[in-house]
Amino acid sequence: MSRTATTSSYSITMRLHTAPDHAVVGAVATSIAAAGGIVTAIDVVESHNTRLVLDVTCSAGDADHAKLLEEAVDAIDGVEVYKVSDRTFLLHLGGKIEVASKVPLRNRDDLSMAYTPGVGRVSMAIHENPDDVSRLTIKGNSVAVVTDGSAVLGLGNIGPGAALPVMEGKAALFKRFANIDAWPICLATQDTDEIVKAVEMIAPGFGGINLEDIAAPRCFEIERRLRESLDIPVFHDDQHGTAIVVLAALTNALRVVEKELASARVVVSGAGAAGTAIVTLLIAAGVTDVVVYDRVGCLVPDLEGLSPAQQVLAEQTNPRGVTGGLHDALQGADVFVGVSAPNILDPVWIKDMADDAVVFALANPDPEVDPGEAGKYAAVVASGRSDYPNQINNVLAFPGVFRGLLDARASEITIDMLIRAAEAIALVVKDDELNPSFIIPTVFHPDVTKAVAAAIRGH
Amino acid sequence: MSRTATTSSYSITMRLHTAPDHAVVGAVATSIAAAGGIVTAIDVVESHNTRLVLDVTCSAGDADHAKLLEEAVDAIDGVEVYKVSDRTFLLHLGGKIEVASKVPLRNRDDLSMAYTPGVGRVSMAIHENPDDVSRLTIKGNSVAVVTDGSAVLGLGNIGPGAALPVMEGKAALFKRFANIDAWPICLATQDTDEIVKAVEMIAPGFGGINLEDIAAPRCFEIERRLRESLDIPVFHDDQHGTAIVVLAALTNALRVVEKELASARVVVSGAGAAGTAIVTLLIAAGVTDVVVYDRVGCLVPDLEGLSPAQQVLAEQTNPRGVTGGLHDALQGADVFVGVSAPNILDPVWIKDMADDAVVFALANPDPEVDPGEAGKYAAVVASGRSDYPNQINNVLAFPGVFRGLLDARASEITIDMLIRAAEAIALVVKDDELNPSFIIPTVFHPDVTKAVAAAIRGH
Repeated sequence: MSRTATTSSYSITMRLHTAPDHAVVGAVATSIAAAGGIVTAIDVVESHNTRLVLDVTCSAGDADHAKLLEEAVDAIDGVEVYKVSDRTFLLHLGGKIEVASKVPLRNRDDLSMAYTPGVGRVSMAIHENPDDVSRLTIKGNSVAVVTDGSAVLGLGNIGPGAALPVMEGKAALFKRFANIDAWPICLATQDTDEIVKAVEMIAPGFGGINLEDIAAPRCFEIERRLRESLDIPVFHDDQHGTAIVVLAALTNALRVVEKELASARVVVSGAGAAGTAIVTLLIAAGVTDVVVYDRVGCLVPDLEGLSPAQQVLAEQTNPRGVTGGLHDALQGADVFVGVSAPNILDPVWIKDMADDAVVFALANPDPEVDPGEAGKYAAVVASGRSDYPNQINNVLAFPGVFRGLLDARASEITIDMLIRAAEAIALVVKDDELNPSFIIPTVFHPDVTKAVAAAIRGH
Repeated sequence: MSRTATTSSYSITMRLHTAPDHAVVGAVATSIAAAGGIVTAIDVVESHNTRLVLDVTCSAGDADHAKLLEEAVDAIDGVEVYKVSDRTFLLHLGGKIEVASKVPLRNRDDLSMAYTPGVGRVSMAIHENPDDVSRLTIKGNSVAVVTDGSAVLGLGNIGPGAALPVMEGKAALFKRFANIDAWPICLATQDTDEIVKAVEMIAPGFGGINLEDIAAPRCFEIERRLRESLDIPVFHDDQHGTAIVVLAALTNALRVVEKELASARVVVSGAGAAGTAIVTLLIAAGVTDVVVYDRVGCLVPDLEGLSPAQQVLAEQTNPRGVTGGLHDALQGADVFVGVSAPNILDPVWIKDMADDAVVFALANPDPEVDPGEAGKYAAVVASGRSDYPNQINNVLAFPGVFRGLLDARASEITIDMLIRAAEAIALVVKDDELNPSFIIPTVFHPDVTKAVAAAIRGH
């Protein structure tokens, strides 16, 4: 069989009943390794005169590989696989977030302050001075993570219920990285008007709206209309979070190859939510020469079938009037940014780009070009994958963006804020740390959220 | 001045700068007591050669009384009131609830299980088997606390923002008493159709809907329509939570006076959300003789101006054709339940009720009759107030109701469940505990939530 790369996101725990012979443990580990798995833990749960009970945890590549590991272990003489648990599913049981009370509720006195009758005075204070709601309630620190389930990760239109684990994960990340209280709102509609109306209805209880995994082009209209009608900031992370991190990474990639944004030739593949926002932000940040491709080909103003957002892009891009396919546009280009589809860029095309080419292949889960192959020809390569250097990860941006917005009690988010946020992320990588494999900080870098929040606040 | 009853819901902390003479502390305590306040804590924050800094916490009756206490202390020689803080407001700063992650997010492996790419498998599992959403997400343990801010506590139509502290308090109580993850949803509309639509839109992420502080009569239509359209239980706590606790308390009050529900003559004042639900539940539980009053007088079928809900009540009640005012209906009545307006029942009218009269005066914050006065003539008195025995408090019902509904993954709530919940609360008071001042358990009784949840589950 071909060896599958193992991943801790596909990790199983096998409960084994074995003969009371500790040599069996060695045989189990050996057989898993021989089958391409990685053993990460072996616990002896029970030891009897006639039997051992073992929990063996190992990483597999995918479901088929996990099954193969199970069969390999079960084939060992004196070993019975009693149960197999998928650790990712175990982690999700009961959900990944919870609500906690920040106030004690031990006795009647506590109740009388946190609830009736004491809470009545707080409500009346807000009624008399509505701005106090941010100070006296969770509104000042809470974000609604809103989806219609129409474009969830790379999984497509799987609906609001199936999107919930992703939105919960997002809420957990908001807490972990920015101490923000985010709650998932999964909408039972994919109609633009209904989504806009629903978000307008629930807005009073939140300090910000994070739109998530809503398909293009409806995501553009939804965001635009909500920004007009609401007095709290609205941020579609798939657009602007991605754009901020791409601009940050590109800023540092160009530092590595000693080129300038203003004179770089950039080719972008993909004019959906992410691509549109990336091109818009790059232009705002000073890029002058960008050519955009989508399924329909190179975006030019007279192309038929463009969405309104794509029409705007077509009019702002391709100053040299490039024609032909992606390979044509790449001739002499300094930068390729892909947010489109797997394996659309032949690695050898990179040889036709300018010297010291920069390649960001961000399609998930399978990039436009294998990062390893691209690295043979490009000076700097980034992808969305965690198993290669330079992962472009929105977690670098959205926690700090909302932290800054909430701290400032901002009512809107501007493109200048996005540019400042990207600069802040780029600057977290110090000159002496910068190299082709480290253009972007890890999401666990303790300075990232603070730097982004300060940049958003503008001081 | 007349002495105001102090309450911990009106508690202030005064920071004092005093002469470095510990005798001053005694003078402070004495002056507060003389002015009718109750000192609950004195902390020496700093002690210098020339100055003491003291934090003195005391309960007052209301804002005027707090001001008076401050002036009394400030008048003491050698004492300066530096700052006065309202403890209830301090408690509310930043809100009363927060979101917590139940899963570790320490490193890349954790992220790959809780978020991408691992979460994708969980989403696809739910996409393939939609029922799994209750098991693999927070939906199985989460409740939306939904309000339009139109009938908040006794404060009236103060709007969704001013309602938020109350909804947060409710969410905190859900966690404290039933380990349920509830999130406030404060709607920017008071239109019935828009409220129904908004709740339908957000329903996929929640396992239940708790409607809260929505004015009658729109609350009836909203609940009815949502129960028809949603596959999760919908419960308007102001109606059914109150009705459950009233039925529980009445059951035990009748145990005390040795009367039967089926033969008791009951008079109810108030045909809003609570009154309507109480009458409906009492009839379902076996009460046969109930007369209902509202602002318009005694509800009878041919009365003009009745809402549809009141019309239904009128047709189900008043079997003996009582006419006249409330005082007339009370002649020979066994039970009075008020959920209406302050001071509409003259205590001496209770003498005209049957022997061993039961009086529940539940208007908030000021009851239909002073409980102390009522107690001179009635055998059992209950109220909504925490400073008298027998507080009728919804916290006895709603946590257990939703705990049971979520545990059972119930899609609806039936009137039989409500009756069983009331019986369960009543039975928490053991025969040897039961007396006229203890017909209902305290909300902190450890068995209440479990008993109600089991009753709702039906096993």
